[in-house]
Amino acid sequence: MTFELNSQIEKDTFHVIDMDLCRVLLMNDKRFPWLMLVPMQPDLVEVFDLEEEDQVLMTLEVNYAAKVLADLSQAKKMNVGSLGNIVSQLHLHVVARNEGDAAWPGPVWGVGNAVPYDDGELKALLQDLRTALDYD
Amino acid sequence: MTFELNSQIEKDTFHVIDMDLCRVLLMNDKRFPWLMLVPMQPDLVEVFDLEEEDQVLMTLEVNYAAKVLADLSQAKKMNVGSLGNIVSQLHLHVVARNEGDAAWPGPVWGVGNAVPYDDGELKALLQDLRTALDYD
Repeated sequence: MTFELNSQIEKDTFHVIDMDLCRVLLMNDKRFPWLMLVPMQPDLVEVFDLEEEDQVLMTLEVNYAAKVLADLSQAKKMNVGSLGNIVSQLHLHVVARNEGDAAWPGPVWGVGNAVPYDDGELKALLQDLRTALDYD
Repeated sequence: MTFELNSQIEKDTFHVIDMDLCRVLLMNDKRFPWLMLVPMQPDLVEVFDLEEEDQVLMTLEVNYAAKVLADLSQAKKMNVGSLGNIVSQLHLHVVARNEGDAAWPGPVWGVGNAVPYDDGELKALLQDLRTALDYD
């Protein structure tokens, strides 16, 4: 089996960069600076489905992405989570939150409708993210 | 500075066990089998506030607790997340989810009101959790 990105996740996101374990995606919802990290292995559903050394690698990549997005977005608080009640392929959300955003202080999942990026702002944001996340 | 548990978290939970890094608590809400893990260090807000080796330890403890709770509760899906928009002290939620539960398929945070455990069921559940989590 090879890794294949779930079609719903693919539809909702843009590709940012591949880290050692995780593909980093940007949610197409400009209400929240919102990354998604998907470990590039087949048949994962729960965080504990990964081998222990990959659990460690995933965490370091997720926390690194959270720090980068926090700095870029000047967030008040980062929300990090793995839910998967609807799309079961293991994926980690990294969301930058601020007082007064469209879901504050509740969680972002399932709240209202996504507001897509314009082409110009998308291009600029992807460029900023790629530069900031290029950790090699 | 020494570690002190946030008073709101203390009010909402029961103490289960202390792992090497994290205190494990049970949310007093029988709608969902729901653990909370709090790293026992002062002044933590974000996951990346921990030293890298403690990020690793926290993840292994959280994922271990998630596996234990998944097995105990026969959950369809585990939800794991760190939000902290209201209580800023770093804490990780580990929630067992099933189709038809009080928030399915949405997130549990901020949904309805907690339903407290009865004394008898609480005592039994804490005993089961302590036995299952005793990983030394």
